[in-house]
Amino acid sequence: MIKVGIVGATGYTGVELLRLLVNHPQVTIECITSRGEAGRAVSDLFPNLRGHLDQLFCQPEVQPLANCDVVFFATPHCVAMELVPELIKQGTKVIDLSADFRLRNATEWEHWYNMPHTCPELLSEAVYGLPEVNRDAIKTAQLIAVPGCYPTATQLGFIPLLEQGLIDPSHLIADAKSGVSGAGRKAAIGTLLTESSENMKAYAVAGHRHLPEISQGLSDVSGSPVGLTFVPHLTPMIRGIHATLYGTLTQEINLQTLFEQRYADEPFVDILPAGSHPETRTVAGTNVCRIAVHQPQQNNTVVVLSAIDNLVKGASGQAIQNMNINFGLPESMGLNTIAVMP
Amino acid sequence: MIKVGIVGATGYTGVELLRLLVNHPQVTIECITSRGEAGRAVSDLFPNLRGHLDQLFCQPEVQPLANCDVVFFATPHCVAMELVPELIKQGTKVIDLSADFRLRNATEWEHWYNMPHTCPELLSEAVYGLPEVNRDAIKTAQLIAVPGCYPTATQLGFIPLLEQGLIDPSHLIADAKSGVSGAGRKAAIGTLLTESSENMKAYAVAGHRHLPEISQGLSDVSGSPVGLTFVPHLTPMIRGIHATLYGTLTQEINLQTLFEQRYADEPFVDILPAGSHPETRTVAGTNVCRIAVHQPQQNNTVVVLSAIDNLVKGASGQAIQNMNINFGLPESMGLNTIAVMP
Amino acid sequence: MIKVGIVGATGYTGVELLRLLVNHPQVTIECITSRGEAGRAVSDLFPNLRGHLDQLFCQPEVQPLANCDVVFFATPHCVAMELVPELIKQGTKVIDLSADFRLRNATEWEHWYNMPHTCPELLSEAVYGLPEVNRDAIKTAQLIAVPGCYPTATQLGFIPLLEQGLIDPSHLIADAKSGVSGAGRKAAIGTLLTESSENMKAYAVAGHRHLPEISQGLSDVSGSPVGLTFVPHLTPMIRGIHATLYGTLTQEINLQTLFEQRYADEPFVDILPAGSHPETRTVAGTNVCRIAVHQPQQNNTVVVLSAIDNLVKGASGQAIQNMNINFGLPESMGLNTIAVMP
Amino acid sequence: MIKVGIVGATGYTGVELLRLLVNHPQVTIECITSRGEAGRAVSDLFPNLRGHLDQLFCQPEVQPLANCDVVFFATPHCVAMELVPELIKQGTKVIDLSADFRLRNATEWEHWYNMPHTCPELLSEAVYGLPEVNRDAIKTAQLIAVPGCYPTATQLGFIPLLEQGLIDPSHLIADAKSGVSGAGRKAAIGTLLTESSENMKAYAVAGHRHLPEISQGLSDVSGSPVGLTFVPHLTPMIRGIHATLYGTLTQEINLQTLFEQRYADEPFVDILPAGSHPETRTVAGTNVCRIAVHQPQQNNTVVVLSAIDNLVKGASGQAIQNMNINFGLPESMGLNTIAVMP
Repeated sequence: MIKVGIVGATGYTGVELLRLLVNHPQVTIECITSRGEAGRAVSDLFPNLRGHLDQLFCQPEVQPLANCDVVFFATPHCVAMELVPELIKQGTKVIDLSADFRLRNATEWEHWYNMPHTCPELLSEAVYGLPEVNRDAIKTAQLIAVPGCYPTATQLGFIPLLEQGLIDPSHLIADAKSGVSGAGRKAAIGTLLTESSENMKAYAVAGHRHLPEISQGLSDVSGSPVGLTFVPHLTPMIRGIHATLYGTLTQEINLQTLFEQRYADEPFVDILPAGSHPETRTVAGTNVCRIAVHQPQQNNTVVVLSAIDNLVKGASGQAIQNMNINFGLPESMGLNTIAVMP
Repeated sequence: MIKVGIVGATGYTGVELLRLLVNHPQVTIECITSRGEAGRAVSDLFPNLRGHLDQLFCQPEVQPLANCDVVFFATPHCVAMELVPELIKQGTKVIDLSADFRLRNATEWEHWYNMPHTCPELLSEAVYGLPEVNRDAIKTAQLIAVPGCYPTATQLGFIPLLEQGLIDPSHLIADAKSGVSGAGRKAAIGTLLTESSENMKAYAVAGHRHLPEISQGLSDVSGSPVGLTFVPHLTPMIRGIHATLYGTLTQEINLQTLFEQRYADEPFVDILPAGSHPETRTVAGTNVCRIAVHQPQQNNTVVVLSAIDNLVKGASGQAIQNMNINFGLPESMGLNTIAVMP
Repeated sequence: MIKVGIVGATGYTGVELLRLLVNHPQVTIECITSRGEAGRAVSDLFPNLRGHLDQLFCQPEVQPLANCDVVFFATPHCVAMELVPELIKQGTKVIDLSADFRLRNATEWEHWYNMPHTCPELLSEAVYGLPEVNRDAIKTAQLIAVPGCYPTATQLGFIPLLEQGLIDPSHLIADAKSGVSGAGRKAAIGTLLTESSENMKAYAVAGHRHLPEISQGLSDVSGSPVGLTFVPHLTPMIRGIHATLYGTLTQEINLQTLFEQRYADEPFVDILPAGSHPETRTVAGTNVCRIAVHQPQQNNTVVVLSAIDNLVKGASGQAIQNMNINFGLPESMGLNTIAVMP
Repeated sequence: MIKVGIVGATGYTGVELLRLLVNHPQVTIECITSRGEAGRAVSDLFPNLRGHLDQLFCQPEVQPLANCDVVFFATPHCVAMELVPELIKQGTKVIDLSADFRLRNATEWEHWYNMPHTCPELLSEAVYGLPEVNRDAIKTAQLIAVPGCYPTATQLGFIPLLEQGLIDPSHLIADAKSGVSGAGRKAAIGTLLTESSENMKAYAVAGHRHLPEISQGLSDVSGSPVGLTFVPHLTPMIRGIHATLYGTLTQEINLQTLFEQRYADEPFVDILPAGSHPETRTVAGTNVCRIAVHQPQQNNTVVVLSAIDNLVKGASGQAIQNMNINFGLPESMGLNTIAVMP
């Protein structure tokens, strides 16, 4: 059994880790930390866990965490980088769901997050945990940076095209729509039901923190720097990301076959039949990314539709997928839930 | 392995049966019928099942169904009663999620459903499948009538009080709020998102078909006919029933203890701590009924709050719970999912 | 033209006052105060007002407010009572949308609001601004306490029955469902879209601050103290209250006629035809209260369904209705908007 | 007073016309037709109109319509073209909210609508009712084709750029998100609350009927045929369209100034300050189009955000704006409502 610790389990990625790990057959949850809720029953804060989990939140202290086999960080950015170096030193594995280790370039990180990175030396050691690209590196990593939600949906949609050099890498457009849970579990006016239901808006068009992460990943698979316009939108639903991706084809290709072959062996990427439109509700609560590819009017613009659950394949589920790979378990273990419809 | 057939699997209780049975370790799904969709892949209609279920809808014919160990009817009322007699004759077990066998009195059934009942002789044979009341009878039944959604939430809330004669049975009020999925998967204007979101309304105040079912059940536990006012409301959400129940106490009692003791051994009734308020989202997708009991200002009105998922404990989950009991399996088998929050 | 000041216009009742007053033909808005937003354009915070209102928020100082003909307080409780005495002294009229002057009994107010009332001497002077009951007193009042949202929907539904002594006043039940805007425009986790959509729950069953206000009002019309059980529910929509009211009839009466006659001359109470169910969306954005009355199965329980927009008839619209009455204007002036459907 | 007839008033654009026309100071509504609801009170079907409108639905017969000064068609496509020729012949003005007269090319119309056009000779006579482009022609038109919802939001966003030749017309992308009311008031499974809330999806990527309309309009202002990729999405809200538009700049320009100057005199186009993001809720129920223009990272991709209410500026409000222009009234008459927020 893998001994697991979770830091910052009062947020949405935290409770989602708990929902999935409670039923994972190879895991025991050793400690669930929260500075603010220490001493409180976890199932008191999250009543969906009543009857499934009996533990209390505990203080985030190094030693009990270091005694785990693996520690998940489900924290806002800038928390993990304070604790991770000591855990790494003690040989504990770390799977970080925050943004602290996603960018390889410390200067770029500091530009976007507007503060010094406290352990830049670990940036090169961290493996970017997108299994569909980095599975081999994930197997042996001690520190895994789980991709963000927008980056997961966007990269999985563009990868088959960029790997093969089929679209102009200098002019990519990602128009992404996210449910409100992407903003996290924190008191704020903008994400009240009263403010965000019956409404649609773009935000952060001038520059969202996921932009450099997506650009880094797409540049890697493209082999040269990409030019990306990324426009996120806040959508009146709890969960889900729908990324609508646009690229300019530079040659003719059977797009359907391309996508099906690229992901034929991937357990969590589902290419829909030609002409389909993925719906976020069909992946809610699951680790699946559903993708459809279109070439409207047969002109040279390819349209990729990519749908995930931002809290599962875009966060906690992908984190567990990384854990499974890293510990040599079947990659889908504990991740076979079916979306609830309707 | 139990061989299962499902009649009418294109509705919401049908797809919910499939979601739950696909992962049930003691079940094989033999046939999934639909007159309108025969020949189509089930996962084409319900993409959440892609990768989990490979079957096609087939025509609803007697023999393949009769060859099953148990057949679930997830049909509108008046469909089951046409097919059930032949299945019963051939020794097949039947678990009917519709209303056809819930009322013992054929005259009353015909009054509320406004047509002749075609097999009234089976009404007395059918067992009303509320395990918290009828577990023993369920064990040996060949024909089980699964309670409706409102009746489940309402009865579980009133039972501890009525069994002990603690409230005036002649003056019960059930103010129930249901998500829109209770109206089923059928084209209709009133349940369009445009008509039913951002809105709250009562409906069928003059008389809802669940009224006689609830009255029958409560009269049974009370030992005398009850007087019930039942007001259902359409609530702008997909799933969930929240029943708010009012009774007039006839004596002093520790309500919290009463409820905790009554349901101490029930796997799917969760009495919340004193002072709590159950939320429907904490039971969404699960077979749990969460209940809290209050006595505001210590006056003689008791308020019971009872929350279920109308499609699980209020339909398909309870149907499987009945199957588990009837086939001698652990009662919770296949029903241990955790609600997705948020 | 009536010179109007608004204190605390950054909340939902504040912006709603602005929306309605901007088009009121007899009003000029003199000052719109906000401690936190002073100096900012109002339409920057509330872009729906772009092109309709050019003013800035200003500091809440006494003198500019005292120079107005009337000052609306759209503040949380305990703010108005600090400023009102000075305004009253200077002869300014005050219409308070908060709870500070709704209860006549200072001790009871202090019990429910858990702090000393700073001007209890004004409590007896304040007129409770429910026009359907207190129209004459409103005409001459200097200080008007606008009823709360739940109290408005509940009292308008019970009044015809209690005035005529037709129901048992000792056993009233108000099961009320409110949209999330009732919680106000403040950062909080519980009212995030992620927490409050796709969910239904009761809250404050042990005792809600609107309980003593409703009891006071109903006892007034009943002529004796009432016994009320009041259960509020949080409903996944932005606006609207649907109160479902239950009483025990003590004599036979034509309920439809009773209600139609009671409100025949009321511009903002609309009794629906027999058998109807009011929907909150039909009153959204308007000052109308729609009511239907039922006697299910002709038993002795009367069911009244009462729907309002909590921010209009339940707050800002009713405040303007009071202003119109108090200043001798046509009661409906500025309040004739039609609900947007769908 | 202008005598108005409305054909097909049982749909969403119909009730929206009624909501706006009831308060229009220069209009009397002469007949409101519905084949299915003839004889029923309009306010019975649409209770938001109770107290505002006393008429009954009547049969759609030519003569009473021809006696009106202007007839609005709020019908599905292919209805108007049957009645319009006779009305035109009799000198009645027609404002058609359907698609029947939007395309000038009959062959293209027949391709997209898959049936013969019954009065192609009127296509050249019809004026495309986008006031921001065709105001002068609208003044003298007898037959006005009101633009569709997507076409309005999209054209208003692209026009300033294409008129000045500032973007590559061969590579335009319109990623549009619509509320569910765009699907109309008709019984359908796909737009049930249960199917379309908590969900996001693209649809009709292969080709939506608004594509040729948008292309025609943009080609007109561009002066040459445009290449447009148009991807509509179904968004879980009732009202609103948010179009996110992408173009490739061919020269440097002050985009903010360009947009502000282009629409400086337009009463219903509101250019937001630089860096803003329009929200659909701020235009709900109003005839305003709110636009913001961005150039992220100063690369050569311009991003235009354009928000309207699909049923107002995208349909009924724009129809009335056309009527006002055509009849020489102030363009904003009856259209000055403020969006309800929250």
